[in-house]
Amino acid sequence: MTFVEIAEACDLVIFGAKGDLARRKLLPSLYQLEKATQMHVATRIIGVGRADWNKEEYIKVVREALENFMQEKIDETVWFNLSRRLDFCNLDVNQTSHFAKLGKMLDQKNRITINYFAMPPSTFANICKGLGNAKLNSKPTRVVMEKPLGTSLLTSQEINNNVGKFFEESQVFRIDHYLGKETVLNLLALRFANSIFINNWDNRAIDHVQITVAEKVGIEGRWSYFDKVGQMRDMIQNHLLQILSMIAMSPLSDLSADAIRDEKVKVLNSLRFIDHKNVLEKTVRGQYTAGYIQGKQVPGYLEEKGANKLSNTETFVAIRVDIDNWRWAGVPFYLRTGKRLPTKCSEVVVYFKSPQINLFKDSYTKLPKNKLTIRLQPDEGVDIEILNKVPGLDHKHKLQTTKLDLSYSQTFNQSHLADAYERLLLENMRGIQALFVRRDEVEAAWSWVDSIINAWSVNADSLESYKAGTWGPISSMTMITRDGRCWNEFQ
Amino acid sequence: MTFVEIAEACDLVIFGAKGDLARRKLLPSLYQLEKATQMHVATRIIGVGRADWNKEEYIKVVREALENFMQEKIDETVWFNLSRRLDFCNLDVNQTSHFAKLGKMLDQKNRITINYFAMPPSTFANICKGLGNAKLNSKPTRVVMEKPLGTSLLTSQEINNNVGKFFEESQVFRIDHYLGKETVLNLLALRFANSIFINNWDNRAIDHVQITVAEKVGIEGRWSYFDKVGQMRDMIQNHLLQILSMIAMSPLSDLSADAIRDEKVKVLNSLRFIDHKNVLEKTVRGQYTAGYIQGKQVPGYLEEKGANKLSNTETFVAIRVDIDNWRWAGVPFYLRTGKRLPTKCSEVVVYFKSPQINLFKDSYTKLPKNKLTIRLQPDEGVDIEILNKVPGLDHKHKLQTTKLDLSYSQTFNQSHLADAYERLLLENMRGIQALFVRRDEVEAAWSWVDSIINAWSVNADSLESYKAGTWGPISSMTMITRDGRCWNEFQ
Repeated sequence: MTFVEIAEACDLVIFGAKGDLARRKLLPSLYQLEKATQMHVATRIIGVGRADWNKEEYIKVVREALENFMQEKIDETVWFNLSRRLDFCNLDVNQTSHFAKLGKMLDQKNRITINYFAMPPSTFANICKGLGNAKLNSKPTRVVMEKPLGTSLLTSQEINNNVGKFFEESQVFRIDHYLGKETVLNLLALRFANSIFINNWDNRAIDHVQITVAEKVGIEGRWSYFDKVGQMRDMIQNHLLQILSMIAMSPLSDLSADAIRDEKVKVLNSLRFIDHKNVLEKTVRGQYTAGYIQGKQVPGYLEEKGANKLSNTETFVAIRVDIDNWRWAGVPFYLRTGKRLPTKCSEVVVYFKSPQINLFKDSYTKLPKNKLTIRLQPDEGVDIEILNKVPGLDHKHKLQTTKLDLSYSQTFNQSHLADAYERLLLENMRGIQALFVRRDEVEAAWSWVDSIINAWSVNADSLESYKAGTWGPISSMTMITRDGRCWNEFQ
Repeated sequence: MTFVEIAEACDLVIFGAKGDLARRKLLPSLYQLEKATQMHVATRIIGVGRADWNKEEYIKVVREALENFMQEKIDETVWFNLSRRLDFCNLDVNQTSHFAKLGKMLDQKNRITINYFAMPPSTFANICKGLGNAKLNSKPTRVVMEKPLGTSLLTSQEINNNVGKFFEESQVFRIDHYLGKETVLNLLALRFANSIFINNWDNRAIDHVQITVAEKVGIEGRWSYFDKVGQMRDMIQNHLLQILSMIAMSPLSDLSADAIRDEKVKVLNSLRFIDHKNVLEKTVRGQYTAGYIQGKQVPGYLEEKGANKLSNTETFVAIRVDIDNWRWAGVPFYLRTGKRLPTKCSEVVVYFKSPQINLFKDSYTKLPKNKLTIRLQPDEGVDIEILNKVPGLDHKHKLQTTKLDLSYSQTFNQSHLADAYERLLLENMRGIQALFVRRDEVEAAWSWVDSIINAWSVNADSLESYKAGTWGPISSMTMITRDGRCWNEFQ
């Protein structure tokens, strides 16, 4: 695969044209790429599904999706250009023979085929088989897959094996949309372009790191899907471990896909395993009960529509992660994620060590730690909390923590910050794998997550309840305060 | 001297009641301290001078000074309280016998006498002799002296010896008003309460430091005074070297006066001497010619009112200072100060080293250095310049320097930031010497400055001209660019 920086001419084939992912995320992102004139002029978009649509009907479906799921009004010129690219292929992915029809619609000489699997992983085997049989799998054809891939190391290996029968790793683009977020990408710049952080990025300077991904929503009608998965597989295994590996990876030799992924997988392979002996000490597993979110009453997890009252699936996880390598020995990474928390926000907070001598005991018996906060959402940005003297005539040096703030929206003053899917689709059209997850990363993450899930299963009492609208079970506080630390508070 | 934190009851005796310093600075500051109810209720203020005023006349003079030199309208309640403290003593400092009269006005049993010498240093010997003969010099009586003290090590020693005959060092408070500035004091908090700076404050992390004190004004009618002194003695010997020593001093064991001053004097004693062999390489000495400041034509130094056309006094100095100690070996401190520069501002800029590997060659062939800027004036504050990724869909990691800013006026939202003189007068009333300059500091600074002035005197061609409204002679640029660096640019 050659390294190109402009989007190539593609046939973008969307398997699951009718599905949520396609309509809510992919189509609006393609509209934005069209608007930003980032797509190659010859690129085409082919919806695939069992629906009995022709091209015109599909164009209507796309228009409707844009109208429903975009925040902005459709610009008719953009729409004109986008709609000209659209086509539809009626195809049942379980019918291998159907794929010949798709083959006829592609122009593999002049365009690169990108097969976007916007369907459940259980269908991937058949899709790949179909593509393979129709000889639609040779390089430079690519496949794009959504995580989570499987629900364990074993099932993930199964999926990857099935895909691997027909596609080489260099053809496979595994999406974790967190890797498309501006602030996650900015981690590379922050960490490797700024000597004040380069010099301070290890266990001599950093006390601990917190990664929080808090959701305000509950299950949103996906109860039966979510209940099989749980917060650990849905959020920790992919998003939080990806962020963790971007924070913790050792300095890169360059910014190539494999340089980045080599370092990330080294981190994932250094995670200290948690087992039944220490799982109750290192993890907290919660399920929400009825409560209030901003004054509005909301039901508990077991009272949601379609709920099985006996479910013990977790909707909240907190973990103390230890990384057993030279850089991070002694520096815990605290992860926490949950549904029905008081606010929606994702952030990374790096706590630097306290000064070893406290000259300012009059202000603080213990000096607050310097904090670097990387806000992934809602207001993307970076801030550093440092101590300054409060102006005034006091003789005692009265100190106060103050924030040096960099808000993206204010600083860069851009009306539209690109969505993660826009970036990832575009990187895909460029054929660059840096922001996609390599197989060994997925498997390293699964094998670590599996050990915790197994440990939970032998500790029946590991599930605790928390009221909707709170920050999870009390033991999440206990876990971190036991270490003499506390969770960052959100405004 | 006991360590007290509240202002004691004082008889504040102002020698030079009629002078500029008293009227422009001390009286407005005393008004502010009154307004902030910081002075002890029993404290009195006694103007001293040869003027034939009685108490009532002096009160009128004070009122006039406040009206002329304060930015704000006088509050009559504050004025009532302040005016009740005032008294006047008619006294010629050259007449030793006159001091008995002053003695009668003091209450040394119940109040601490503070003698503020707001007169030229040439009078200090007689004032001290007068105070001594009238037995007004014993502890806890204090004397406050304005810098610059003398014009060389020798003359400064003379002054200090004359004072020292009657007052111990613990009674002597030498003012450098830069030490009363909020942002200079904040250096203690910044440096010693924040581990991200503690870990980065030496020659492994810092590339170089720049200290700039730029004045827009010219001579302001003080030609004959200034011409005998020059920018080196007027600004470098005191203010810039004080700032330098606050930046460069080693970590303190505590915040006591002597802990701070011990560390500062160690820095001053480590300054590498500059002599006739390298003075042209390490220093730039300039004198302004006619030019424009913000579109307004201004005369040259030699055309100012009262000028001697042959003067070769400098109005601009730039110096590369090397500090020969373990912490700073290899880290130059560039000082620059001048009159008739394009803007009025004082700031310290700490340049951290560039990362040793550049992963972002697409954005920068050489990565910009992280910069910590401490703004002393006009808008007091702190900012850190770091590199962030510019949001956008570019594949290349496009970086941009962005500022994380802390403006005092915005952050602390105080209507009145205390003036340096307010703070220093108050610290004096509290009897705390930490913000005053100790004799050994003054002398260490003079002996280093003397060597440069001597070297200049044997290099007749050391004086260069620069146009008013520019940043000094071209060789000031050359001096720093020769080292592969450049002066910080001001907005």
